[in-house]
Amino acid sequence: MASHGFWSLGAENGGESGGQSPVTARAWCQAAAQKFTGGIGSKLCALLNVGEVEKSADGVDKPEAESCNCTTKPCNCTTKPCNCSKSNLGFSELYSTDLLPALNGDLKTMTFLQEVVDILLAYIVESFDRSTKVIDFHYPNELLQRNNWELSDEPETLDDILISCRATLKYAIKTAHPRYFNQLSTGLDMVGLAADWLTSTANTNMFTYEVAPVFVLLEYVTLKKMREIIGWEDGRGDGIFSPGGAISNMYAMLLARYKMFPEVKEKGMSSVPKLVAFTSEHSHFSIKKGAAALGIGTESVICIKADERGKLIPSDLERRIVEAKQKGYVPFFVSATAGTTVYGAFDPLIAISDICKKYNVWMHVDGAWGGSLLMSQKHRWKLNGVERANSMTWNPHKMMAVPLQCSALLVREEGLMQSCNQMQACYLFQQDKQYDLSYDTGDKALQCGRHVDIFKLWLMWRAKGTIGFEAQIDKCLELSEYLYNKIKDREGYEMVFDGKPQHTNVCFWYLPPDVRYLEDKVEKMKRLHKVAPTIKARMMEYGTTMVSYQPQGDKVNFFRMVISNPAATFEDIDFLIEEIERLGQDL
Amino acid sequence: MASHGFWSLGAENGGESGGQSPVTARAWCQAAAQKFTGGIGSKLCALLNVGEVEKSADGVDKPEAESCNCTTKPCNCTTKPCNCSKSNLGFSELYSTDLLPALNGDLKTMTFLQEVVDILLAYIVESFDRSTKVIDFHYPNELLQRNNWELSDEPETLDDILISCRATLKYAIKTAHPRYFNQLSTGLDMVGLAADWLTSTANTNMFTYEVAPVFVLLEYVTLKKMREIIGWEDGRGDGIFSPGGAISNMYAMLLARYKMFPEVKEKGMSSVPKLVAFTSEHSHFSIKKGAAALGIGTESVICIKADERGKLIPSDLERRIVEAKQKGYVPFFVSATAGTTVYGAFDPLIAISDICKKYNVWMHVDGAWGGSLLMSQKHRWKLNGVERANSMTWNPHKMMAVPLQCSALLVREEGLMQSCNQMQACYLFQQDKQYDLSYDTGDKALQCGRHVDIFKLWLMWRAKGTIGFEAQIDKCLELSEYLYNKIKDREGYEMVFDGKPQHTNVCFWYLPPDVRYLEDKVEKMKRLHKVAPTIKARMMEYGTTMVSYQPQGDKVNFFRMVISNPAATFEDIDFLIEEIERLGQDL
Repeated sequence: MASHGFWSLGAENGGESGGQSPVTARAWCQAAAQKFTGGIGSKLCALLNVGEVEKSADGVDKPEAESCNCTTKPCNCTTKPCNCSKSNLGFSELYSTDLLPALNGDLKTMTFLQEVVDILLAYIVESFDRSTKVIDFHYPNELLQRNNWELSDEPETLDDILISCRATLKYAIKTAHPRYFNQLSTGLDMVGLAADWLTSTANTNMFTYEVAPVFVLLEYVTLKKMREIIGWEDGRGDGIFSPGGAISNMYAMLLARYKMFPEVKEKGMSSVPKLVAFTSEHSHFSIKKGAAALGIGTESVICIKADERGKLIPSDLERRIVEAKQKGYVPFFVSATAGTTVYGAFDPLIAISDICKKYNVWMHVDGAWGGSLLMSQKHRWKLNGVERANSMTWNPHKMMAVPLQCSALLVREEGLMQSCNQMQACYLFQQDKQYDLSYDTGDKALQCGRHVDIFKLWLMWRAKGTIGFEAQIDKCLELSEYLYNKIKDREGYEMVFDGKPQHTNVCFWYLPPDVRYLEDKVEKMKRLHKVAPTIKARMMEYGTTMVSYQPQGDKVNFFRMVISNPAATFEDIDFLIEEIERLGQDL
Repeated sequence: MASHGFWSLGAENGGESGGQSPVTARAWCQAAAQKFTGGIGSKLCALLNVGEVEKSADGVDKPEAESCNCTTKPCNCTTKPCNCSKSNLGFSELYSTDLLPALNGDLKTMTFLQEVVDILLAYIVESFDRSTKVIDFHYPNELLQRNNWELSDEPETLDDILISCRATLKYAIKTAHPRYFNQLSTGLDMVGLAADWLTSTANTNMFTYEVAPVFVLLEYVTLKKMREIIGWEDGRGDGIFSPGGAISNMYAMLLARYKMFPEVKEKGMSSVPKLVAFTSEHSHFSIKKGAAALGIGTESVICIKADERGKLIPSDLERRIVEAKQKGYVPFFVSATAGTTVYGAFDPLIAISDICKKYNVWMHVDGAWGGSLLMSQKHRWKLNGVERANSMTWNPHKMMAVPLQCSALLVREEGLMQSCNQMQACYLFQQDKQYDLSYDTGDKALQCGRHVDIFKLWLMWRAKGTIGFEAQIDKCLELSEYLYNKIKDREGYEMVFDGKPQHTNVCFWYLPPDVRYLEDKVEKMKRLHKVAPTIKARMMEYGTTMVSYQPQGDKVNFFRMVISNPAATFEDIDFLIEEIERLGQDL
């Protein structure tokens, strides 16, 4: 039987022998000493013995140390180790100053962190339990009053800290819950979570190999693998993990501009002609945000018509490019979308790439949502042509269910990111280091410090293999097809667009009986517009499930169901439908 | 005695009774059932009993379930719960697919996560142990070969995953180590770490109140507190946590431009006159990076002279503003630095604010490094005038030792961030939600999804109180003064600038005996330039300590010591000096 871990040796022994084996603190300690290498075991052992001796309170075996008798909390003893009453590990008398790096803080620290972990483990198990609520919802003002969230001058005890942890989780959304469908990022992967805990513990920064040797290498290995999957020869090219798809898209636009007009870096937009970018009317709003930030302006983002399924119409793209050129503007960037946010549509990448090639425009693929379908042999055809792109955004934190946040920008041309963004700060990227400087990635991006987002993806990939991700993705798509088949002809439902979903997005209206047969079209739309928001608000109040809704163009509010949650099953889809009808039938 | 947590009940019982109490699995189970609320305890208990029964292998008490006999790994049983041999919790036969949300995955999940936590706890204790190395350094190619880091199609067992976790930590930098001084962000706070583990477990996104109710409120509370500390009336204003200081600075520049020329959002830089920004020659390179990205251009960032201590010279700022205006340019942004990266200098904010007011220019304070001194009654005078700024970058992940990453941008004007950046995506920021929409913060920034960076700062603040942060910061400054006093007159040392440090930056040259008395100045500088890089490389190879170095202007490579590590003591400063001399005396 595998170990239950350091803290469980006693329990484990008890369990293994069918519940008969006595466990002494000494035996536990000895086992602990063996478990840890590098002398830590013995150190802990010593600490534990001290604890025992203290409890015996006869004074004979006490470790040699002056005793302090301070009554002020937190304790300000200068004599360490101290024998204050708080050394009995009652959290109500301990403060964060008693934890590491405090002298003799080891045991207290491990006990405190273990207590936090216990809270987290309970939360995790609860999150996957369908009999629990997805959310214990309260309005902002109410939530502000339900707990004391204020910051003060004085410290709180560790007991209070644990209470705050519990309160925070009590009112959190259970994003791992099998019936949480509200966002493109849902679910909680256990290996990904473990990896994120390790990342927090390693607490470092991606800018140089010097301070993140392993993580920098893992980013290198993983980006190469992702480029191979895109189909770039030998996985060549460049890339970086950035803080989310919006920033990845902005980085792509920045590179496209620099590639065409490198002087823009020094001289700004006043040195270049009027640039225009193109993207479908269904694309993500980050394309416009990026254009606003980069000084291009939102008016220079030309929205291309999409068909009824939400796919960009290539002929309209070409027409608008020609039109822009005739006006003397310079088309520099096309962002095709692989998996739009609302409809889950995949733009026709091959046709778009032909146009980009013809007019010499940078082709970016925003695959934040749909890029992960490249992992599936069954579904990757939807991105055919992606290998012709100059850059691609791909967010493993969405369809691959990697914990937030994990977004990659992949770039075909090597060296471009560095020359576009580098400022060569001498205090960070010293040129006379002892190792190969190409591993210092910090100057490839606008960020200086960069959070370690790679380890959770890398460890999950090791744990699942490519085939594991594939199975997970295929299952979500299967569920969405199940939902589509279930409601497409069901009474009271109307699909927002025809045909089975390309991604896991299923967009539909639920028409309550009273709305269903209204003859006055205007009145019907007016009432229908309020149905989804009302059902959603009720879902949140009951806490049973969560799904998103929105209007789009001239279409009144409709539900957008998406499935990226690996915990979801056919029964959860059934439940969602039942719940919509239960909560909406009186509307 | 406080509980050691769920997994330790047996051991704890053993310990409490002086090592005599027998612990049965049943008793442990009952205690566990009491510990957890909401029925989870009983559920776990049932699971544990199943495990026991299975091990008894007599077949009589087995739960009612069809048995599967699959030999393929990972198991593809459709009959769940399955009785494959791997259900004995040997990680070498378990895969990630056996963990939650797998049926009966609870116990396996908790056991696996506990095993990971044990690895992390051991690493944490080791990190604070001065007898361990700061780094087990290997060159990139060597490190690539020391382990199999590749990603493959097939999954690995959980045992392999645990091995990868251990390998990753083996080669990681111990950023918590008391002798790690390499970056502005060092140390590891135990409450901050616990908070980050909780954040990972909650795994949500900051864009709306809907999906992050508590975290959004805590961000609101904390930003208000920070604005109060800046000195803005009643803590009014706005702000956001962003992915690092460089992005915070860029957001500030974006706001300044929008404030002066709101049409730039739609029409781009071609609609506005030539804009110029000002910052000291010692400022962070992110100001230039931001200008490059925003289409302003690095040439439009005018570098203002700094004095010998690295502080911006106000008269030069005014002169350059007047000069720019005479050329017809529009000064729109001054970024003063509170705590420069290399010298730790504080620009004179009052004088700068007078100039900004006179010429109607947005005043930004880049306090990424030095902003935290506002928490100290003793040192906050160095930022006098910050209350007159329009915006401020303040990175609690630096001097406040909050785990990476945690950077705030504070803005004096309310509503500006929203109008500057909003695109009102209908699928995220629905206008007909049931709650107060002002809590949906996603449209204040360029990012769409945003990582939860607030909880670790908030929880640390609760645990320490403002006075705890103050004590921690004051101690680091005391240590740096100690270092300064120790080396300023010591043989073989030369200070890069005179006077005691304003921040914890101590910049100095160490001159080995052979270099010390060289008469040929050119030769001396040539040799001195190589001293710091060589000592640094040796430090990394021995793994004993890490400190940064760089050249600056016409100054050859010098050490830049910074102290933000709460674990550092006077002895560690002594050690650093001894180590520099030990490693450098033969150069």
